[in-house]
Amino acid sequence: MSPHPKLPPEPQKPLWEILSRQAVYDASPWIRVERQRIRLPDGRVIDDYHQLLLPDYAIVFAETDDGRVIMQRQYKHGVGCVTLTLPGGLLRSGEDALLGAQRELLEETGYEAPDWRFLGQFVQNSNYGGSRGHLFAARAARWVVAPDAGDLEEIEVVMMPRAEVVAALGRNEIQVSSFAAAIAMATHPAFGG
Amino acid sequence: MSPHPKLPPEPQKPLWEILSRQAVYDASPWIRVERQRIRLPDGRVIDDYHQLLLPDYAIVFAETDDGRVIMQRQYKHGVGCVTLTLPGGLLRSGEDALLGAQRELLEETGYEAPDWRFLGQFVQNSNYGGSRGHLFAARAARWVVAPDAGDLEEIEVVMMPRAEVVAALGRNEIQVSSFAAAIAMATHPAFGG
Repeated sequence: MSPHPKLPPEPQKPLWEILSRQAVYDASPWIRVERQRIRLPDGRVIDDYHQLLLPDYAIVFAETDDGRVIMQRQYKHGVGCVTLTLPGGLLRSGEDALLGAQRELLEETGYEAPDWRFLGQFVQNSNYGGSRGHLFAARAARWVVAPDAGDLEEIEVVMMPRAEVVAALGRNEIQVSSFAAAIAMATHPAFGG
Repeated sequence: MSPHPKLPPEPQKPLWEILSRQAVYDASPWIRVERQRIRLPDGRVIDDYHQLLLPDYAIVFAETDDGRVIMQRQYKHGVGCVTLTLPGGLLRSGEDALLGAQRELLEETGYEAPDWRFLGQFVQNSNYGGSRGHLFAARAARWVVAPDAGDLEEIEVVMMPRAEVVAALGRNEIQVSSFAAAIAMATHPAFGG
């Protein structure tokens, strides 16, 4: 008997080919906008496809042993109002994402935690890229020092029961996609939440 | 007896004041970058705070009655590789977000659904703003017509059991924050998932 026919390997889809790239706005390291000339797999050429280059950041959904989440209330200019946020911030050049998340948690809130898990890393815009966010969850956080964030925003630390954080997400009081992803993943039964 | 002293109302935190704004790159309607001069509540002035203005979009986590999620596999330039995505796309000027999500689902996959719920709307970058994504979940989707997306990307529709989609998110095979938020929220017990 002949063996069952082998399935052919799934064809590798070609990537878009970048024919040329030009910085049309450059305020590095904060933001750089590129206009790229692209050749699609079918041969079509797109003259002006943009990419956004912004620094990576890390955020953390951190809980204490008594079931409270270390949240913040602060003005965020990208949202345009005072809003609930998670601790986090931009990574320094070459900084490991986990170390950056731990540094930001300590600077912004004064908390440390012994137990960390990685939720994933995600770009902000599927077409244009943008910042890559590294999402973490931390357990058994404990207060060790007065916070000293040095940020432009005045940050109010708010200790919230986990159920209240999830409810706030359900009411869309969380208004940034990476915060929403971190809260929903960290509290999701499928991911150990 | 005197009444208990009233707590003073929580002071309304002032917003950042935009002193001036300048378009430093403008490829409207796709992308516009503003440089703003900002006065912080403490009086400090920031000369170059950026804002990104990009069109709103809608995405949908849509399931069939037999428990499969309508996923896609396609090249996304913002991720730089072929990746799992949810159906969705940019809203047309003035278009209602729900109608846009329904239009994109139909165009990209050929499916319609009678049962929709709104998960929330989220900006991509807490500092710089960017696109606002409107996230939906749909149930009882059924195939009605051949898809006709007209997108730059070649879209392969992939019907995946819900547990496999969640597992793919856990393995970081979903690489865009709004897709991660939509999947985690749509399948989260706290949000009726």
